[in-house]
Amino acid sequence: MMFQSPADVRAACRRGQWTNVTAGLCGSFAQANLAILPADWAFDFLRFCQANPKPCPVLEVTDPGDPLLKRIAPQADIRTDLPRYRVYRDGQLVDEVLDITSLWQDDFVGFLIGCSFSFEAELLAANIPVRHIELGTNVPMYRTNVSCHPAGRFRGPMVVSMRPMKAQHAIEATIITSRLPAVHGAPVHLGDPSLIGIKDLDKPDYGDPAPVYPGEIPVFWACGVTPQAAALASKPPIMITHAPGHMLVTDLRNDELVRDW
Amino acid sequence: MMFQSPADVRAACRRGQWTNVTAGLCGSFAQANLAILPADWAFDFLRFCQANPKPCPVLEVTDPGDPLLKRIAPQADIRTDLPRYRVYRDGQLVDEVLDITSLWQDDFVGFLIGCSFSFEAELLAANIPVRHIELGTNVPMYRTNVSCHPAGRFRGPMVVSMRPMKAQHAIEATIITSRLPAVHGAPVHLGDPSLIGIKDLDKPDYGDPAPVYPGEIPVFWACGVTPQAAALASKPPIMITHAPGHMLVTDLRNDELVRDW
Repeated sequence: MMFQSPADVRAACRRGQWTNVTAGLCGSFAQANLAILPADWAFDFLRFCQANPKPCPVLEVTDPGDPLLKRIAPQADIRTDLPRYRVYRDGQLVDEVLDITSLWQDDFVGFLIGCSFSFEAELLAANIPVRHIELGTNVPMYRTNVSCHPAGRFRGPMVVSMRPMKAQHAIEATIITSRLPAVHGAPVHLGDPSLIGIKDLDKPDYGDPAPVYPGEIPVFWACGVTPQAAALASKPPIMITHAPGHMLVTDLRNDELVRDW
Repeated sequence: MMFQSPADVRAACRRGQWTNVTAGLCGSFAQANLAILPADWAFDFLRFCQANPKPCPVLEVTDPGDPLLKRIAPQADIRTDLPRYRVYRDGQLVDEVLDITSLWQDDFVGFLIGCSFSFEAELLAANIPVRHIELGTNVPMYRTNVSCHPAGRFRGPMVVSMRPMKAQHAIEATIITSRLPAVHGAPVHLGDPSLIGIKDLDKPDYGDPAPVYPGEIPVFWACGVTPQAAALASKPPIMITHAPGHMLVTDLRNDELVRDW
């Protein structure tokens, strides 16, 4: 299916006509992770994100009870406009659904969080190869021994994603992503994985392995799995997220993320 | 009085031995604006800051009821460790005091917000002259016709500070401050003041005028007065801030602000 605009993708999701992953759809536009929590958990979660901006770059927070976005995709409805959702109760996955209208609560607050798809698009535009895209696999992600700064009920390790690169590309990628704080910013580490508590690069905690070829070093970015993992570990009575890879396609162009959007 | 460290400044404030402005004290360390609000106003305020990161760069948010900082000045007590405070009730200034211990409430949340002193130190270090520092005056600040993104009860215009510069310095200053998002980041405007609703540069809304010499252009940065003005306009029952210029001296070096502190 070809889409003319992010609004077209969202409309297709709303009508149940697009229920698949969003990778590559409207590729010049940013996509966003979604986390929905009840209002009495929302302040602590926003404090957690504020204290950990690299893994948790918040693009927009909804008004409590209001499912409509105002900034990154005006009038988008977070109950319907993503292709697929996961519902967690007390920290346990209980359902995967295409629409959360029937689950919506008056005290729900939605958090839209930046996604690495945006910086990968900028890396590719700069002719920096991205291994897992070349291989058609999911990016490898690892829990580290680096603790996030806790806030209220939320705490946990930073999760990172890894992309193997030649030194020159690692340098260029650092410069490019340092200008994109809204999508995780500059790397948090490069080189020896054991220095951040990763024992075996071939065994990621999430996603698929990506081979590191001779002459390359692994480069690690803070990953948007971090806030979701921290939130679930705190066992909120209900939490709703996008299903992995089934993101919100926003009206924000990737090249707009360099500024104060 | 000479201070060996930021902790010494804070101890002198705590003992009532330093009650003056903090400009120039421990100049290589960042100073921070303070706003304290009751918990039921805190989530909206943090959302306002999140939505407007250039005027409102949050460095730390305290746990509700806990006056001790953990990140930017560990164990600092926000009730005592600034030289002077202002107390507002229902949006009106009612008192200026040296200590707020007797006013502390179990539901108070403190917000520490980045301050332009830090980026001015970096500009001076790069041999970029800063007019109001040369003149020994306060930086000129202006209300603009640029609206902040509202959040809950908080809304208002962006307030900007202005520094006149030669074009080459404006370019260098843009590069330097773009790397310092924790202290307002890159300029929000340069050149014609009328384009952001400023009628007369000689009549700032806050601070003192700063002359723009031939061959210079005015360069405008988002200003930390913005969140305070927005908060007061919403008339919270109580709000406590630092007195102008009487900031918290943190343990964060200015050159650390480039990273994810």
